[in-house]
Amino acid sequence: MSAAKKRRVAVVGATGVAGQQFLVSLGNHPWFEVARLAASERSAGKKFGDAIKDASGATRWFCDEPCPKEALNLTVENAEKLVLDDIDLVFTAIETEPAKIVEPIYAKRVPVISTASAFRYEKDVPVFLPGVNIDHAALIAEQRKNRGWKGFITPGPNCTTVGLVFTLKPLHDRFGIGSVIMTSMQAVSGAGRSPGVLSYDILDNVVPYIPKEEEKVQTETQKILGTIKDGTIVSAPFNVSCTCTRVNVIDGHTEAVFVSLKKPATTDEIKQAWKQGYDEFLSLKLPSAPPELVHYTEEPFRPQPRLDRNFNDGMTTVIGRLRTDNVLPNGIKYVLLSHNTKMGAAKGAVLTGEYLIKSGIMQ
Amino acid sequence: MSAAKKRRVAVVGATGVAGQQFLVSLGNHPWFEVARLAASERSAGKKFGDAIKDASGATRWFCDEPCPKEALNLTVENAEKLVLDDIDLVFTAIETEPAKIVEPIYAKRVPVISTASAFRYEKDVPVFLPGVNIDHAALIAEQRKNRGWKGFITPGPNCTTVGLVFTLKPLHDRFGIGSVIMTSMQAVSGAGRSPGVLSYDILDNVVPYIPKEEEKVQTETQKILGTIKDGTIVSAPFNVSCTCTRVNVIDGHTEAVFVSLKKPATTDEIKQAWKQGYDEFLSLKLPSAPPELVHYTEEPFRPQPRLDRNFNDGMTTVIGRLRTDNVLPNGIKYVLLSHNTKMGAAKGAVLTGEYLIKSGIMQ
Amino acid sequence: MSAAKKRRVAVVGATGVAGQQFLVSLGNHPWFEVARLAASERSAGKKFGDAIKDASGATRWFCDEPCPKEALNLTVENAEKLVLDDIDLVFTAIETEPAKIVEPIYAKRVPVISTASAFRYEKDVPVFLPGVNIDHAALIAEQRKNRGWKGFITPGPNCTTVGLVFTLKPLHDRFGIGSVIMTSMQAVSGAGRSPGVLSYDILDNVVPYIPKEEEKVQTETQKILGTIKDGTIVSAPFNVSCTCTRVNVIDGHTEAVFVSLKKPATTDEIKQAWKQGYDEFLSLKLPSAPPELVHYTEEPFRPQPRLDRNFNDGMTTVIGRLRTDNVLPNGIKYVLLSHNTKMGAAKGAVLTGEYLIKSGIMQ
Amino acid sequence: MSAAKKRRVAVVGATGVAGQQFLVSLGNHPWFEVARLAASERSAGKKFGDAIKDASGATRWFCDEPCPKEALNLTVENAEKLVLDDIDLVFTAIETEPAKIVEPIYAKRVPVISTASAFRYEKDVPVFLPGVNIDHAALIAEQRKNRGWKGFITPGPNCTTVGLVFTLKPLHDRFGIGSVIMTSMQAVSGAGRSPGVLSYDILDNVVPYIPKEEEKVQTETQKILGTIKDGTIVSAPFNVSCTCTRVNVIDGHTEAVFVSLKKPATTDEIKQAWKQGYDEFLSLKLPSAPPELVHYTEEPFRPQPRLDRNFNDGMTTVIGRLRTDNVLPNGIKYVLLSHNTKMGAAKGAVLTGEYLIKSGIMQ
Repeated sequence: MSAAKKRRVAVVGATGVAGQQFLVSLGNHPWFEVARLAASERSAGKKFGDAIKDASGATRWFCDEPCPKEALNLTVENAEKLVLDDIDLVFTAIETEPAKIVEPIYAKRVPVISTASAFRYEKDVPVFLPGVNIDHAALIAEQRKNRGWKGFITPGPNCTTVGLVFTLKPLHDRFGIGSVIMTSMQAVSGAGRSPGVLSYDILDNVVPYIPKEEEKVQTETQKILGTIKDGTIVSAPFNVSCTCTRVNVIDGHTEAVFVSLKKPATTDEIKQAWKQGYDEFLSLKLPSAPPELVHYTEEPFRPQPRLDRNFNDGMTTVIGRLRTDNVLPNGIKYVLLSHNTKMGAAKGAVLTGEYLIKSGIMQ
Repeated sequence: MSAAKKRRVAVVGATGVAGQQFLVSLGNHPWFEVARLAASERSAGKKFGDAIKDASGATRWFCDEPCPKEALNLTVENAEKLVLDDIDLVFTAIETEPAKIVEPIYAKRVPVISTASAFRYEKDVPVFLPGVNIDHAALIAEQRKNRGWKGFITPGPNCTTVGLVFTLKPLHDRFGIGSVIMTSMQAVSGAGRSPGVLSYDILDNVVPYIPKEEEKVQTETQKILGTIKDGTIVSAPFNVSCTCTRVNVIDGHTEAVFVSLKKPATTDEIKQAWKQGYDEFLSLKLPSAPPELVHYTEEPFRPQPRLDRNFNDGMTTVIGRLRTDNVLPNGIKYVLLSHNTKMGAAKGAVLTGEYLIKSGIMQ
Repeated sequence: MSAAKKRRVAVVGATGVAGQQFLVSLGNHPWFEVARLAASERSAGKKFGDAIKDASGATRWFCDEPCPKEALNLTVENAEKLVLDDIDLVFTAIETEPAKIVEPIYAKRVPVISTASAFRYEKDVPVFLPGVNIDHAALIAEQRKNRGWKGFITPGPNCTTVGLVFTLKPLHDRFGIGSVIMTSMQAVSGAGRSPGVLSYDILDNVVPYIPKEEEKVQTETQKILGTIKDGTIVSAPFNVSCTCTRVNVIDGHTEAVFVSLKKPATTDEIKQAWKQGYDEFLSLKLPSAPPELVHYTEEPFRPQPRLDRNFNDGMTTVIGRLRTDNVLPNGIKYVLLSHNTKMGAAKGAVLTGEYLIKSGIMQ
Repeated sequence: MSAAKKRRVAVVGATGVAGQQFLVSLGNHPWFEVARLAASERSAGKKFGDAIKDASGATRWFCDEPCPKEALNLTVENAEKLVLDDIDLVFTAIETEPAKIVEPIYAKRVPVISTASAFRYEKDVPVFLPGVNIDHAALIAEQRKNRGWKGFITPGPNCTTVGLVFTLKPLHDRFGIGSVIMTSMQAVSGAGRSPGVLSYDILDNVVPYIPKEEEKVQTETQKILGTIKDGTIVSAPFNVSCTCTRVNVIDGHTEAVFVSLKKPATTDEIKQAWKQGYDEFLSLKLPSAPPELVHYTEEPFRPQPRLDRNFNDGMTTVIGRLRTDNVLPNGIKYVLLSHNTKMGAAKGAVLTGEYLIKSGIMQ
């Protein structure tokens, strides 16, 4: 991993919200250099700065941070015809259907780190979360063998899974988890922009259903916390039951979590588990890693999305309100807040890329 | 119960939000006539229409419905000095601390139906919910004996308890309840107006803590669904565990509920239980009773506060998203929506008054 | 106008927001009967109750009021192939481009009252506002002659124009208007649902530009308040200058208006003008007419969209904060609130239909 | 102005929103050192870190930026008994009534830069806006003479005046201003926290009246752009007419402005005037000065509060939508966005302090 030579990456789906966040996350990155941009045919051939202007001339840039200057002058290519000769790694930020088509084409040659769910539930596809399941890299050899690829595909989890798993992992390691009940209050940015959430539908309102979201969280949590056995993942042996709702918040998913532990634990022991649970990962000091992956606050009214979502630039899951629960065996309950479009999407994927390099899994 | 003579009622705390809702709920009421209004000393001596003007001359009327004309011309009296000679029943809509002082004074002579929590947790005080626990009226004799009162005090439940208990009662009757886990997303109107919820605190936000709310819901649910034994209430034998949050919604509390039943039940059986659970109560056709106390909707994205809170003028709890849950024994999960300031407050209290009369408990 | 026989009307664009509002406005109407429904080819052939279900099975009904039962069982027809043999009147609620195609086809046979802007700026097309400009009916003969139609097209004004013109008309009649400056704060429902306003764009925000809106208001105000001369409209001889913004409000357009009058007028005289300005129209007592077209409130903090938009079921423009202005000659300023999807759209169009019948312009 | 020795400043009203913003603005300041904190008697004697905890133990810190560590350990003093022996400058962030009492006491000894309106309209009190009216410093000698003070009081303008004057000043200098009409859409943070704006009042709403705000903006604009003659300010010779409204936005006041110029000007000339209007001030490179005081954006849908309020950390007024207006003589119209609690309050006051030092008016 020489500082002298950065890896050349392509960002596919660069004009969308998540794609733009990749550009921000990769701006001035010490290990990566954005060499190619791709999007749908409609944008192909335009300078990126022009491709994000709409018919009225308005710039459709969705991040708080400015667009890195280098990116503005790159020419957007057609994602379906992307030639990858000079590329070391692809980050994709596209919808499920196109992902099913183009990601396998890219994976023939290079690693693909994806925010799409297209391959998330395939048996030979690991869903990495930094600090949580690097051992799932064992699936990559399997995937290459099965599919005859030089590269591989590794999608990140659904944004609602991310904070939940980050808070569960240290508990599972230390006390064992028996079961999980969770109700989410999710931000509108999680729905993207096409169609996204209409103001008319969410203003002065809560929408208590997000199609497929609950199944995703339930399945992914068990998969990510599962163990590798005989080259395959054995799902974690506990059930997860969710109700996922949408609330009128821009960014930041709030989740009310109830957990049954296998062994009794005091609230102090649980806070301790969170405090120390990622020491090894954090000691790697990866470029995009925050000082903590989870942070417990004693403030009684926190975490709150508007006040806490940007803690450590949205890369830390903030936890609060830890209490014992008298319904579940060895029950505890808490509230978590996770930035759905930072650690929950592009910047989390970049951190995964760093992690795969540091671990020697990816060159 | 002769139509010829209406009962004369006093509304205490008439100038506040809940008090105004009493006036609306009692406007043109077939059994009740608002004979007296009381509030704090500051308003005493003013016509009601003047008492609700603020320093700038603005009218502080908080209901969507107009104020009944008769009320505008009543003179507001000092709640601490209210003389009850000609009054049959008092509705109070005041804070806990003043309620502790004045409600016992009123109860010496007349029944007091209260929205305050002041006496809610006393052993000899029933917390009535229409159609649910009229048998708790047995406590009234106890209360009178203990306290030497001619009247009595009966507070309504916390607004967050209301929808939960309405949905649990038919399940408890038919299948038995083993335990309940609930996460609420509560409207800002539940916090009243002094101080209420600042826009600065809740805009683009969720506040994951409402002081004392979770304890109230847990305790009240067990009490209201409890059974009378030897003149006292034995709490229902199941645990309730809650996380109560505030969201940016005007009216209508949304609750994501997970229930363990004592006996297995199909979703059809559960819907059936809800459909038939209040037949006896509804057959009384009380003036303020809605056609249904709970209504199940098959619409996948419902209930939603803005669209469903005014169903049957806010007197029906709307339920949706019934599914099985794989964490709790015989687990089910659903979402409910209850109007916190209609059935959850004044109009619910008026319905309780009607119920007590119809049942012969109150003259 | 016999009560015995209702006119048979077709609603085109019935599945959209405005179309649904036509159905509500025409439910149990004493003069009109909804005989036919039409929409795009996609919905054609389905029962209306099925046509408004989306892929997930959710019902897309957008009005607070329930859908009239008769409508649910009507079969939706293809708007492009609508046969009008048995129809007396068409109400259209469709986008500009399809309106350009189908409205002239309908107008060959029957009158078309439209909410689209497609023909609003044609010289021989009147833009009626009830109580304001029935004399513009003179254009209809012109329109028929020019185009060889048996019917005619009359579009309603843009929703932002409606409240403005209602408040200006009595002033123009009595004092003359020299010029108008207006800043609007418009609700999201005005943008419809495709694409509508994304929560992501308007939450915690103001969007200070609505394409084409300012030009529409400026042009339409002059046209509607113009006078007929030689069979054509001479625009009202005053300039209108607007800034139109979008705010995070569901329904109800707020407008801050500054007017220069031709003659000095006291605030009392102006309130008087508003009070009496529509006496003649109101004396017609049309079925959908409110008791007042404009209502002045002395409440200092009003009008407010959430509190005042449903005044008289959204058919009255509420005005407040009348003050003198020291910048414009004989300047006054005030704030108005107009319900953009009630009087500002379907129900206003129905009232126009009633008005045309009562005036003998339409059979 | 030696770097060696920082001026010692006291922040009065330190526990409130604006006071906390002073602490953030003064953290690591090259010229100022926060030496003393004061607040009401209730907080006196506590460490600042404790003084901002409420009864429930929650920390009431309202800024996005963290509290400077030095401040947390300072002991809060009673503002009414503050001894100023070792203080060079006082920043006050208190309500009008206490300001009337304590600011003159402080001003006997030291300069007081205030965010309160208490002395804003006194004849011998300048209301400074950086880059706009440093010549008004001539009033200070007058003020000292009249009142026998060693120090002086200089309040900043109302937050709604700030952006308006910044955009008018370059136009007034170059073309002359004939009159101004303005409608504001103001954020809730401008109302502070006691009582502040209730969510119940502003959600899904616009409140079209803010008591005294319009008079403040009208008077202050004329005063700040006025000229010094014979030791007193002659108000700028043009009228200002406003309607001030509150919208559901956290931070950032949006204003729709219509201006009559004395001389005709093209939109290019106007943009040029804005671009160059503050060159002299900006060349001072004061520590808190942004790169531009006003910035014109060509983006058609901008400025928007959520996207533009933090431009240059809230110290730049962003302007957009410049168009000609056909109502006013030489009329133009535009939209501006100004951060009401950054340049519009504490940080603007700190910049004023820097400006007074750099100009030699204050030591």
